[in-house]
Amino acid sequence: MTEKKVGIADTTFARYDMGGAAIDELRKNASLKIERYTVPGMKDLPVASKKLIEEKGCDIVMAFAMPGPEVIDKQCAHEASLGIIAAQVLTSRHIIEVFVHEDEVEHDKELALLADRRAREHAQNVLKLLFKPQELEREAGMGKREGFEDAGPLR
Amino acid sequence: MTEKKVGIADTTFARYDMGGAAIDELRKNASLKIERYTVPGMKDLPVASKKLIEEKGCDIVMAFAMPGPEVIDKQCAHEASLGIIAAQVLTSRHIIEVFVHEDEVEHDKELALLADRRAREHAQNVLKLLFKPQELEREAGMGKREGFEDAGPLR
Amino acid sequence: MTEKKVGIADTTFARYDMGGAAIDELRKNASLKIERYTVPGMKDLPVASKKLIEEKGCDIVMAFAMPGPEVIDKQCAHEASLGIIAAQVLTSRHIIEVFVHEDEVEHDKELALLADRRAREHAQNVLKLLFKPQELEREAGMGKREGFEDAGPLR
Amino acid sequence: MTEKKVGIADTTFARYDMGGAAIDELRKNASLKIERYTVPGMKDLPVASKKLIEEKGCDIVMAFAMPGPEVIDKQCAHEASLGIIAAQVLTSRHIIEVFVHEDEVEHDKELALLADRRAREHAQNVLKLLFKPQELEREAGMGKREGFEDAGPLR
Amino acid sequence: MTEKKVGIADTTFARYDMGGAAIDELRKNASLKIERYTVPGMKDLPVASKKLIEEKGCDIVMAFAMPGPEVIDKQCAHEASLGIIAAQVLTSRHIIEVFVHEDEVEHDKELALLADRRAREHAQNVLKLLFKPQELEREAGMGKREGFEDAGPLR
Repeated sequence: MTEKKVGIADTTFARYDMGGAAIDELRKNASLKIERYTVPGMKDLPVASKKLIEEKGCDIVMAFAMPGPEVIDKQCAHEASLGIIAAQVLTSRHIIEVFVHEDEVEHDKELALLADRRAREHAQNVLKLLFKPQELEREAGMGKREGFEDAGPLR
Repeated sequence: MTEKKVGIADTTFARYDMGGAAIDELRKNASLKIERYTVPGMKDLPVASKKLIEEKGCDIVMAFAMPGPEVIDKQCAHEASLGIIAAQVLTSRHIIEVFVHEDEVEHDKELALLADRRAREHAQNVLKLLFKPQELEREAGMGKREGFEDAGPLR
Repeated sequence: MTEKKVGIADTTFARYDMGGAAIDELRKNASLKIERYTVPGMKDLPVASKKLIEEKGCDIVMAFAMPGPEVIDKQCAHEASLGIIAAQVLTSRHIIEVFVHEDEVEHDKELALLADRRAREHAQNVLKLLFKPQELEREAGMGKREGFEDAGPLR
Repeated sequence: MTEKKVGIADTTFARYDMGGAAIDELRKNASLKIERYTVPGMKDLPVASKKLIEEKGCDIVMAFAMPGPEVIDKQCAHEASLGIIAAQVLTSRHIIEVFVHEDEVEHDKELALLADRRAREHAQNVLKLLFKPQELEREAGMGKREGFEDAGPLR
Repeated sequence: MTEKKVGIADTTFARYDMGGAAIDELRKNASLKIERYTVPGMKDLPVASKKLIEEKGCDIVMAFAMPGPEVIDKQCAHEASLGIIAAQVLTSRHIIEVFVHEDEVEHDKELALLADRRAREHAQNVLKLLFKPQELEREAGMGKREGFEDAGPLR
C-alpha cells in the first residue's frame, strides 16, 4: 500500500500555529506524507484544501483557522465552513475543519492551549479515519469533544 | 431483486448512539445490508454520506447528529444540513437527516428517549421510502412528527 | 405533442393535503400526467423533486411544505428552499415552491383555507408556465399574491 | 457580429413593471434582441434566468424582483440572490440582479419612481457590460448607486 | 515559464479605487500580466472572477468591494462572499476577496487609507501565493491582518 498523504491548510491570520501542532502529532504517531499550504485567511481555505486534494494528491486534508470575536468574523467563519463542506462534497474526500474561535475562552494563554489540543486531537481523528475507522465506530454517540473535556454519553 | 443497502453516518460528538438504535430498528423489520461510517462531528456527515452512496453503493443513507445548545452549535447544524442537502441533490439519493438538538427537551433522560425514538421512527421512514412509498403517500399532510407525538392534520 | 407531466412532492409533516388540492386543481383544468412522491419532511423535498425530474421525467414539479412557527422550523424552511433552488439550477427545470408557514394566520381553520387556496393558485401558475406563458407576461409587475388577496400594482 | 440578446426575467409578484421599463431603456439605446420570461415569484428567477441563457441563447440576463418588507420576504430575497449567483457561476454569464425592497422608501409613488429608475440605470449597466466595458472601468471605485443619487468617491 | 496573469475584478459601487491601488502595488513588485474587469456591484464579482479565470486565463484573481453599513449591505456582502468561494471551488483557482466595510472606521479619510492599504497588502499576498509560498508558510499562525496592524501570535 502506498503511503497516505495528509494535507495541512492553514492561515497567516490565525494567532497560533495549529498546523505545526497537527504535523507534530501526525508524525509522532504514523508514517505518512504531509503537504502544507498556508493562505492569508480562512475564506481561502476551501480552494486551498481542494488544490491539496486535486493537485497534490492528498487523501485527506485538515483546515485550520482562528476566527475573531466580532459578528463579521463569525460570518466569515460560516462562509469558510460552507466552502469547506462544498469542497468535500465535490471531491468526495474529507477536509477536517479545525476552527478555534477567539471567544471560546477568556485569556490568550488558554486560547493557545485550546488551539494546540484541538489541533492534536483532530490529528488523532484523521489517523483514525485513515487507519482505524472501527475505533471511531466504537466511539459513536460517546460525546467526544476536541480541545475540551469530553461531554460523554447521556445517562 | 438485490438486497437494498442502507448507510448509517453518525458522529462521536453525539451523546447517544442513534445509529445503533436505527440499525436495530431496521434489522428487526427488514432484510437489508447495512454499512456504518462514524465520523468526528456533524460537519463531516455530508461527505461521509456521499462516500457511503458512491463508494459503498448505499441506496439510501441516514445521517445522525446531536447539535449542542449554543449559537455556534446551531450554525454548525445549519451548515451540516446544507451540505447534506447538497450531497443529496448531487447524487440524487436520499440522505435522511436525523438531528436531535440538545435543547429540545430539559433533561438528559428525556433527550436519550427522544433520540432513540426519533432514530427508530426515521428508520421506519427509510423502510417506507425503500419498500412502501404508497404508505407515505397515504400519510401526506397528516402532521407526522418523529420523536414526539404527531401534530395531526388541521381541522 | 406528448402530454406534459407534473411532479407533486409533498410531506407527511405538513398538516394539510396541499398536494391533493393541487392535483385536483390541475386535473380540473388540463389533461396531463401527474406523478406524486411523498417524503417525511421538507428537507427531503429537494432530492425528491430532482428524482421526479430525472427518474420520472416530470416537466415541472410542485414542492409543498408547512413549516412550523419556531426558529428551528424557519431555518429548516430556509435550507429546504436553498436546496429546491439548487435542484432547479442543476436540472434547468422549474420546481414551484409552495410553502405555508403555520404562523401566517392565527387559527387552524384559516390555515387550512390558506393552504388549499395557495396550492390551487400555484397549480394555476404551473398551468400558465406550461401552456400560457404569455398570460404570466401580461401579469408582470401586477402584485399577484398566492393564497391571499393580490397586493396589486403600485399607484 | 451577430446581434446581442438580453434576457428579461421578472415576476407577477412585483408591484411595478420593472422589466418593461428596462426593455424600453434598452430599445431606446441599442439594437439588440430581447427575450422576456415572467415567473410567479423571485425564487423562480434563478432557473428562469438559466433557461434564458441555455435555452434562449441570451448573452446576459436582467432579473427583477420587489421583495416585501417582512422578515420572510428578506429571507426569500436572500435565497433568490444566492440562486442567481449560482446560476451565473454555473453558466459563466452575467445575471444582473435588480431588486427593489418595498421598505427602501416610504410611499408607493416613490417606490414606483425608484423601481423605474433602478431598472433603467441597470439597463444602462447591461449596455456597458455588453458594448462599453471600458466605461465601467473608468467608473471603478466612483461610488455609483442605481436608483438613488450616487454616493461618489471618498474624499 | 510564461508570465503569470492576475485578474482584477472590482465595482463602480465602491467608493475607492482599490483595484487601481492593487495594480500599482503588483506592477511595482513584479513582472506580470494584469487583466481588469469592472462590474456594477459586488454580487457581480463571482461570475466576473470566473470569467477572468476561464475566458482571460488568469492564474489568480483579486475581487474588490466596499459594502455599505446597512443590514442589507451586509447580506449582499455575505452572498457575494459565498459566490466567490463557489467560483474558487469550481475553478480550483484562488480569488482573493478584498472587502472593506464602510463601518470599519469612522471617517471617510480613514476609510480611504484602510482601503488603499488593504488592497496593497493583499496584492503582496497574491505575489506570495504566486511566487513565494514558503513565505506564507513561515507566517502561518502569526496573526497577520491586512489594512490594520497585525494582531500577532498569542503569547
